[in-house]
Amino acid sequence: MSDAVSKQPRNELSSFAVLGTGALGGLYGGLLAHDGNSVHFLVRSDFDHIRDHGLKIESPLGDFALAAPQIYAQPADLPQVDVVIVAWKTTSNAALKQALEQTCHPRTIVLVLQNGLDVEKDAAAIVGDENVLGGCCFLCSNKVGPGHIRHLDYGTIVFGEYAAELRGAVSDRMRKLEAIFQRAGIDLRPTENLQQARWKKLVWNIPFNGLSVVLNANTEEIMQDPQARLLAEQLMVEVRRAAKANGINIEASHIEHMLEATRKMVPYDSSMSLDFVAKRPIEVESIFGNPLRASHAAGYQPEKIEMLYEQLCCLDRRNRRV
Amino acid sequence: MSDAVSKQPRNELSSFAVLGTGALGGLYGGLLAHDGNSVHFLVRSDFDHIRDHGLKIESPLGDFALAAPQIYAQPADLPQVDVVIVAWKTTSNAALKQALEQTCHPRTIVLVLQNGLDVEKDAAAIVGDENVLGGCCFLCSNKVGPGHIRHLDYGTIVFGEYAAELRGAVSDRMRKLEAIFQRAGIDLRPTENLQQARWKKLVWNIPFNGLSVVLNANTEEIMQDPQARLLAEQLMVEVRRAAKANGINIEASHIEHMLEATRKMVPYDSSMSLDFVAKRPIEVESIFGNPLRASHAAGYQPEKIEMLYEQLCCLDRRNRRV
Repeated sequence: MSDAVSKQPRNELSSFAVLGTGALGGLYGGLLAHDGNSVHFLVRSDFDHIRDHGLKIESPLGDFALAAPQIYAQPADLPQVDVVIVAWKTTSNAALKQALEQTCHPRTIVLVLQNGLDVEKDAAAIVGDENVLGGCCFLCSNKVGPGHIRHLDYGTIVFGEYAAELRGAVSDRMRKLEAIFQRAGIDLRPTENLQQARWKKLVWNIPFNGLSVVLNANTEEIMQDPQARLLAEQLMVEVRRAAKANGINIEASHIEHMLEATRKMVPYDSSMSLDFVAKRPIEVESIFGNPLRASHAAGYQPEKIEMLYEQLCCLDRRNRRV
Repeated sequence: MSDAVSKQPRNELSSFAVLGTGALGGLYGGLLAHDGNSVHFLVRSDFDHIRDHGLKIESPLGDFALAAPQIYAQPADLPQVDVVIVAWKTTSNAALKQALEQTCHPRTIVLVLQNGLDVEKDAAAIVGDENVLGGCCFLCSNKVGPGHIRHLDYGTIVFGEYAAELRGAVSDRMRKLEAIFQRAGIDLRPTENLQQARWKKLVWNIPFNGLSVVLNANTEEIMQDPQARLLAEQLMVEVRRAAKANGINIEASHIEHMLEATRKMVPYDSSMSLDFVAKRPIEVESIFGNPLRASHAAGYQPEKIEMLYEQLCCLDRRNRRV
């Protein structure tokens, strides 16, 4: 099963499908392929370009190109694989069922790298909770042209088991994935508490993705405005309380750390604001709607998160005239 | 003291100054002058035009023009009068002290027709609480060109005493003003409870002024979007609670009536959204900051009003690059 450029013997997780070959899937799938793994890329908008010119990746880890990656224009063309990496935005999940039914055998692992909360639910409904893992990506990467990914900074993925009965431990398959990814240069780190990782990431994503759209401001502009900065912090406090209501403890210092890190960050346009400006759908349900509903279900009303969700729903609809 | 075109004998409230000759001051001052009262207009941007061409008013009450209104370019040029009508936006109040010191004798009434809460405070600090009355205008009027006012609909002013010791009753001077305004065709109505009138107006202004700016939407667009409409209602509920915390009862049905009236309204760009689009300062402190602070002082935290205030502060600052 090893492909032509394999450098080392493969373990049983020897083939990968990457759903979505953008800033995230192109980078991580590219690194896995560059290391010799058999990686099958589902490519939508850039298919012709990548077929003719390959996939080009610039990265602090070292620039590289894949001259002839294994690419597919349709989910129906994909082969069965051992690991499916869900790397497109949640707003593309309408195509998920066909893609997973096409690629999954009974022991295929589906690794969901999407943003937000409960983003594993769609995959789990198709392949079963026990076959799903989730990962939070801390990544600064852009698609700067067709088949051209520019990885700017960071890149760690914190990942864990999704199924309730498998949480609380690092499984063997997690260790295997960790080894494969790490060997490819991807900092994949196991966690026993995927939900905590997701909520901790929301502490940043909810204020800075949401306010970047509503205020049309980048991270620096938000941090420099006294009221916007205060609002970001108030939203962070609500995310922490919502997590707490869901049984997830996040230390108070996490908020200070996030604010301090954002203050020091190079001015950054969130991916949500880039999507909004390009009039693409924004991930309002996974990043805002799902945490809000989880919070309501747990008996806590986060008033400001709710308001941000309502504003984003309206802005997204008006932006795309739907 | 009656001026040249006076039709009837005047009572002792026989001279008026109007601070701000825009959509509101131009209309009400114009009607008072048209009825023969002595009205002195402080005119800022349109001085030359009005001096050369007069003031033109279109209104469902009947179109009319003032060929040679008494206009003044500087507060220092104004005469002493019996009644000063504060008709500019609260964002112009930096000039209020000079204008009132110039126009007020010890018994001059200052009638503050500005939007929001505690808008009488600036005038009261200059001339004393006991000389101040406040009015809430329910008016659809635009300045469509220099010296050209188009009154579209409504026009009622609900007004009352500001000083704590004078509240709860309709004073003699209120009756006199009522008679003068009504004779001029202005529906000036006395209330014993100015604060309730102000809070009831905020039930509409806070959601629809604020959301029109943040969502870049007119009343119809807000009412047609399910999440924006829900948010407008949630904000109304918070305004009602904030009023309650301040000892002002507003019946719950007022919210339904406001929503229903807005649904039936011709699509309307709020004056705040017009100011925002024109990159003029918006009245964020009088309409949002003051009610928010009053609510906090009374022990109620209106989370969504607070968030809207913070967003508007940031948007206003960024809009004007201050």
